[in-house]
Amino acid sequence: MNQKRFYVNGIECNVFCDPEDFLSKVLREQLLLTGTKIGCGEGQCGACSVILDGRLVRSCITKMRRVKDYAHITTIEGVGRPDKLHVIQRAWIKHGGAQCGYCTPGFIVSTKALLDEKPAPSREDVRAWFQQHRNVCRCTGYIPLIDAVMDAAKVLRGEMKESDLDFVLPADGRIWGSTYPRPTAVGKVTGTLDYGNDICRKLPADRLHMALVQAKVSHALIKGIDTSAAEKMSGVVKVLTHKDVQGKNRISGLITFPTNKGDGWDRPILCDSKVFQYGDALAVVCAVTKEEALAAAEKVKVDLDVLPAYMNLLEAKAPDAIEIHPGTPNHYFTQKTVKGEDTQPYFKDAGNVSVEHSVITSRQPHMNIEPDVAFGYYSDDGKLHVHSKSIGVHLHHAMIVEGLGVAPDQFVLAANPMGGTFGYKFSPTIEALVGVAVMATKRPCMLEFNYHQQQQYTGKRSPFYGTTRLCADKTGKMLAMEYDFDVDHGPYSEFGDLLTLRGNQFIGAGYDIKNIRGEGRTICTNHAWGSAFRGYGAPQSFMMSETTVDLLADKLGMDPLELRYKNVYREGATTPAGQTPDSLSLPKMIDALRPKYKAALENAAKNSNGKFKKGVGVGIGIYGCGLDGPDTSEAYCEAMEDGTFVIGTAWEDHGQGADIGAVTTAHEALRPMRVAPELLRFTWPDTDLRPNSGPAGGSRSQVMTGSAVRVACQNFLEHAKKPDGSYMTYAELKAAGKDTRVSGTYTVPGVPCDENGQGKPFMVYMYGVSMAEVTVDVESGKVVLDKYTAMIDEGKIVNKTTIDGQNYGGIAQGIGYALYEDFEDIEKDKTMVGGGIPYPKDIPDAIELHYFEEPREFGPFGAAGSGELPLIMPTAPIINAIRNATGAVITRIPALPERVLEALKNVK
Amino acid sequence: MNQKRFYVNGIECNVFCDPEDFLSKVLREQLLLTGTKIGCGEGQCGACSVILDGRLVRSCITKMRRVKDYAHITTIEGVGRPDKLHVIQRAWIKHGGAQCGYCTPGFIVSTKALLDEKPAPSREDVRAWFQQHRNVCRCTGYIPLIDAVMDAAKVLRGEMKESDLDFVLPADGRIWGSTYPRPTAVGKVTGTLDYGNDICRKLPADRLHMALVQAKVSHALIKGIDTSAAEKMSGVVKVLTHKDVQGKNRISGLITFPTNKGDGWDRPILCDSKVFQYGDALAVVCAVTKEEALAAAEKVKVDLDVLPAYMNLLEAKAPDAIEIHPGTPNHYFTQKTVKGEDTQPYFKDAGNVSVEHSVITSRQPHMNIEPDVAFGYYSDDGKLHVHSKSIGVHLHHAMIVEGLGVAPDQFVLAANPMGGTFGYKFSPTIEALVGVAVMATKRPCMLEFNYHQQQQYTGKRSPFYGTTRLCADKTGKMLAMEYDFDVDHGPYSEFGDLLTLRGNQFIGAGYDIKNIRGEGRTICTNHAWGSAFRGYGAPQSFMMSETTVDLLADKLGMDPLELRYKNVYREGATTPAGQTPDSLSLPKMIDALRPKYKAALENAAKNSNGKFKKGVGVGIGIYGCGLDGPDTSEAYCEAMEDGTFVIGTAWEDHGQGADIGAVTTAHEALRPMRVAPELLRFTWPDTDLRPNSGPAGGSRSQVMTGSAVRVACQNFLEHAKKPDGSYMTYAELKAAGKDTRVSGTYTVPGVPCDENGQGKPFMVYMYGVSMAEVTVDVESGKVVLDKYTAMIDEGKIVNKTTIDGQNYGGIAQGIGYALYEDFEDIEKDKTMVGGGIPYPKDIPDAIELHYFEEPREFGPFGAAGSGELPLIMPTAPIINAIRNATGAVITRIPALPERVLEALKNVK
Repeated sequence: MNQKRFYVNGIECNVFCDPEDFLSKVLREQLLLTGTKIGCGEGQCGACSVILDGRLVRSCITKMRRVKDYAHITTIEGVGRPDKLHVIQRAWIKHGGAQCGYCTPGFIVSTKALLDEKPAPSREDVRAWFQQHRNVCRCTGYIPLIDAVMDAAKVLRGEMKESDLDFVLPADGRIWGSTYPRPTAVGKVTGTLDYGNDICRKLPADRLHMALVQAKVSHALIKGIDTSAAEKMSGVVKVLTHKDVQGKNRISGLITFPTNKGDGWDRPILCDSKVFQYGDALAVVCAVTKEEALAAAEKVKVDLDVLPAYMNLLEAKAPDAIEIHPGTPNHYFTQKTVKGEDTQPYFKDAGNVSVEHSVITSRQPHMNIEPDVAFGYYSDDGKLHVHSKSIGVHLHHAMIVEGLGVAPDQFVLAANPMGGTFGYKFSPTIEALVGVAVMATKRPCMLEFNYHQQQQYTGKRSPFYGTTRLCADKTGKMLAMEYDFDVDHGPYSEFGDLLTLRGNQFIGAGYDIKNIRGEGRTICTNHAWGSAFRGYGAPQSFMMSETTVDLLADKLGMDPLELRYKNVYREGATTPAGQTPDSLSLPKMIDALRPKYKAALENAAKNSNGKFKKGVGVGIGIYGCGLDGPDTSEAYCEAMEDGTFVIGTAWEDHGQGADIGAVTTAHEALRPMRVAPELLRFTWPDTDLRPNSGPAGGSRSQVMTGSAVRVACQNFLEHAKKPDGSYMTYAELKAAGKDTRVSGTYTVPGVPCDENGQGKPFMVYMYGVSMAEVTVDVESGKVVLDKYTAMIDEGKIVNKTTIDGQNYGGIAQGIGYALYEDFEDIEKDKTMVGGGIPYPKDIPDAIELHYFEEPREFGPFGAAGSGELPLIMPTAPIINAIRNATGAVITRIPALPERVLEALKNVK
Repeated sequence: MNQKRFYVNGIECNVFCDPEDFLSKVLREQLLLTGTKIGCGEGQCGACSVILDGRLVRSCITKMRRVKDYAHITTIEGVGRPDKLHVIQRAWIKHGGAQCGYCTPGFIVSTKALLDEKPAPSREDVRAWFQQHRNVCRCTGYIPLIDAVMDAAKVLRGEMKESDLDFVLPADGRIWGSTYPRPTAVGKVTGTLDYGNDICRKLPADRLHMALVQAKVSHALIKGIDTSAAEKMSGVVKVLTHKDVQGKNRISGLITFPTNKGDGWDRPILCDSKVFQYGDALAVVCAVTKEEALAAAEKVKVDLDVLPAYMNLLEAKAPDAIEIHPGTPNHYFTQKTVKGEDTQPYFKDAGNVSVEHSVITSRQPHMNIEPDVAFGYYSDDGKLHVHSKSIGVHLHHAMIVEGLGVAPDQFVLAANPMGGTFGYKFSPTIEALVGVAVMATKRPCMLEFNYHQQQQYTGKRSPFYGTTRLCADKTGKMLAMEYDFDVDHGPYSEFGDLLTLRGNQFIGAGYDIKNIRGEGRTICTNHAWGSAFRGYGAPQSFMMSETTVDLLADKLGMDPLELRYKNVYREGATTPAGQTPDSLSLPKMIDALRPKYKAALENAAKNSNGKFKKGVGVGIGIYGCGLDGPDTSEAYCEAMEDGTFVIGTAWEDHGQGADIGAVTTAHEALRPMRVAPELLRFTWPDTDLRPNSGPAGGSRSQVMTGSAVRVACQNFLEHAKKPDGSYMTYAELKAAGKDTRVSGTYTVPGVPCDENGQGKPFMVYMYGVSMAEVTVDVESGKVVLDKYTAMIDEGKIVNKTTIDGQNYGGIAQGIGYALYEDFEDIEKDKTMVGGGIPYPKDIPDAIELHYFEEPREFGPFGAAGSGELPLIMPTAPIINAIRNATGAVITRIPALPERVLEALKNVK
């Protein structure tokens, strides 16, 4: 360690540090400037960007020895602060540039460096700058960020008024449907909102760092774990193995269906008898410093009998494969769909046209920028608390409480402000490990993943190996569909049955197909465990059916858009589950798309050449909002002494906008009371403090919890209404002996799907039709998405900025799913770059969104959800566009250049 | 630990803490808002003041359970920042409100709360507010602070322009003699300058906290120390005793005189055979957290044979007293003064008038607001570094390096930005303990004292028990002086001989007394060890001689001012050391005081009554600037690539203004080059990086190091001068192959005092004459100082704001010395209140300073020093004024009410 003097944000710092330490560590851990975030920790994501002597650097790869004495460093805290926002920060707020907000400080600092250097950049310049400096955003699809930079530059050049960046409350005082900024925006753009890792840095001094001892093989029997050497290492307080777990040592997969051959108790907290996948936790070191914990973890000796690892479902299904979970077959669940008449006669009828098409989808990694992090402690009333990135605190409570062996009312789960999860945190990850550590050490404990752990040891999207068969009459009227698919769900059953049901619910969705026979099978493998991911089952399903529709159109000699137009939901149509759709917007959306589609086709034809072939593809996308069946949510509205109202929910915010959703919906519901929006306060989830609003997944929150907020607020109005039509204040309620808090519950009359996949699983759906325009370099196989156009029906818009952000960001992930992203090679894909995260150059600036605001009966004030649809939509249009451009039929995504070249070889 | 949400400076914080923890701990240690300082840690000093929900609180006594959820807290960081200073902060800079700056954040936050509540306070209101909220400043004497508040309030009320608070560079570009703000001011008023404890908070995670096991008796034999139970405690890395010290385990007292009977190696780093005083360090626990270190320290078992404790010099001198340091007599040093003829004939001459007077002075505690703190580490080149509040890094290096057992070139001492030390850090305190810990653990170690440790285990001003005899002819011409005194120097010999010499040098100083016989004796006791304190020997000396002068005047029937006027230094006079004074300003200062004195006497006569008696007292004060004899200092001037110039010195800044002294002197010296003052950069002391400028004590720095800076800068000019008269830039020097750094050394031609106390110890002196106006409540014995007027000759003024601050602050400490401050009762006096620290009500708003800028030959550009004089001046005038008011002769200070009542009883 040496002394180092330098300036941070104009303040002279006198720091003692190891010259080999990274600047990010010194800034965050020694100076507690936690606005600078760590994403990948290896220079691939730019979340840690700071300006060092005028040059933009990634502080996570800048060693302190490269920081000269008296160097000047600018961090996000030096760009602007809540009481003195920089123009860039104000522009970021205006354009909703901060969704989860985790990449935001890095982007804003990067923008500062760009505009310092180049005050009048073009959009392309901005993209090139972010590309060059490796600024990655996983939420926004980049467009809102570029918009923000362009506006900020304009203001800084004096070509636009700074006040034009501000939101102006309309004359009617209504924020519903407006661009009202989300309540967390200021905290996010200034780096002052503390995420889990930031909070960990501010825990009391007696907190312990945890380091995991993880399996480096994918399947093995555990013969012994020797912790004795580790226990003797410096700073080690305790080394934990499964023997230290007081409860059942299993995380419940919450098996949904009785036909599941597993019992759901297959995921150990700390492995005892077997290793089921690479990265499985075998032991935990609790030590004073992170370095000490990591050093000691290296000293734990694990004795394993390595077993054959089934790294895909084909291997796991093989007749000679051993059972990964002894006693449970590797194929442990089957979901059928039986709708209408037997489908075979239709396929056998020579008068009909039928096609069959098989695809394999990827193990898409979520690639959230913020790695997993959690901490836990005993509160003074003796309860065990774990704070994490959980997007289902009440759900996860139920999943892990027995495994820990703590009384349910003595265990509290809470959600930190967090970076995007995109669904991986629909599953508990490290909560139980932290709980075990706190119980064993009786001290606060924290566990932070590095990015390799994030990639290798959190859930991934489960690949489908699926075949779809479609049958239509000669006019293109779809008559029957058959399909079957296997789901590679990894070693843990968690929601695997539900996911398989989702396949059944969405393969062929959008079309009025009266007769369906389908089967989905859930397979246990030794690859990464399958967890939820935005779209949950539907990106796979639409990849199956929507690429098959194009083949059918071809065979029919019909235009693929018109074949869709002929078959999409209209009056009298039913979904694959036999349910009546809640909005019939698909035909009008196709009508709106048609002229653009024709122009695109003309453009493609005109601009293709021997090397670069252009093509156009379309597809529809649909997803439900809610958990299957009679989903329910709770909320409350509470008047506070200071004149504010707390809108209490456990609506987890992982960037999608729980804050703006809760506040906007409450504001709309409370309009008779004319309360200023800034007086509405959202809450952070906590199983002890907040009602059970259900998890923040499946695009259910705005519909379900939004409705619960609506009900709570309306109940409050009734409760507080005075005879003269005005409302009681906090003081008046108190004086009258009335509660200041009023609850609301909302339940939808859904019907769970039966063994034939029939029911009313969702009372609200989202619909979309979209078009991809691509250029394929037939020499390299590289596909460039030139433009993407989406017609979207997500019901009434709650907040325009937020819904744009959800759609841009989801579309970007859908593009990634189609073209770049996978987690197949455990070693190679452990980084963001290895996993194929889309950089600015990978997502087009040309993304058009068109909304069709069909009001929904079961959503609050007509709103639906918006999270899942955009990710679902793009894949098939892109894959269809590649075929349209070149004839190449892509059967496995992502459509990496080598796969495109392979497919091109097969073009007749 | 529980979760707590609240706002700090408008930013929502999500903190997990123990509800029994203090807010200050959470702010400083968890949120790293180190602008909030901890002084006393028990609510007595206000350094930790923050605003909690609109109310000013002392955060060091505010438990977290008293912080409501969603409470709003304002800390200094929220008042203003370096790039956006608050008006109060700007006013503070203008008035030099921040000397050491340690109390500054608390005062500024307190002022914010005051002005929020009361926008137009009177000076009395401001004082009452600070008094009520226990804001204590030890540097400024409060007047500059009140001035700053009044100006800030005016600006905030719109009655003064904010820009009137700014320093305006005069047309000639000269800052010498101006009110140019000190370079550290912005860092101090914003709380962004990191002091030792702040730096400790920002050390890497592997640093260890040290806790001392200290003696709870004052004198004992050590039979054994059992560390086994402590070693087993949580978080403990090592428990150290004297056996772990690799070197001599002694701090050298650097014995100056061969006649000293001790060898100076009497102060153990960690006690081995004996306990010499209460608080002596017996063992050190090094642990991960402070709490763990403290808990383990409780478990160390010490087996002692308690010996009789000699708590004052009378006991230690008793014939039956055992030797505290076996082999060295308790009276271990004697210094005589033999000047002129034998004095006895004068005293025996019946034609002359003579008096004799005995006094005892107090064990004045420094009561700096910042408690002692240090940390150490091995740098990557293997050197052991200790950073502390040392005000003599090169001096202390020599004192402790052998004790540690490290090669001198492998040991580095550095000074942190620090709160006032007022001299206690002229001695090493905890540096060696930290060094031992780092050597034993090989890890960074930190040790912070709480206030009780600060009081009980750092050096104090050594009491004098002295008798003075003065003889004059009937006209009042002083003919001879005799005196003898004992010095209670505590158990460690450190500088005890030098201190005794100081008594000889300043008893009777100011008067041309041709014949002197005196003797001072240094006595070892078991009370607190004696260390340097501003004035170092002179407050005691002038208390002896200046109170005796008044008795002589009485006996002569002369006015005490006129008796002084008759005898002060004029042409041909010599000091007690036989040296010719360097300035003969005393007569003209008395001339200037005379009309004020007469008016004061009239006022006192008019306004006295039976209960409240008013009186006026005068006295002179003198001190030397430098170490005895041929003092020397080094500095350098270095041109930097960025156009700045580094003024390199080891001039330690403990609030007195090393920063402004170095920069102003360099600026003056570099005037031919016309360099902007903000381009001059001062340095922090470090034995490896900076030249030996000598310690920052004895008012020597401006004279000695200021001169070295002058020489270095003038050498630089010569070195860089081009034929055309302009100067080479950094680039030009480099291109020409010339050094960019040029050194300067300055040595004064002093002559150390001989065994008769004769020599030329200082080549520069400071002179003052002052007057105290007091009111004595004869019923309660309480003395109130109504007004204090000082005529000061400190040579040419370097910086007006700074010299005012030095004088106001020193005078306040002199008032404290006279009336309030002592450290006699180890238990009762361990707090600031117990030690008698002056609060605002204890220091009058009416302090008048008048400067007589006599240029000094040996000071840079005519400057002298300014630190010691103001503390020396007030005591005798106050004591004389009490006698003038009531006839009561105070023979022991502080003149506490009970002592005044006792003295009143003896009034004839």
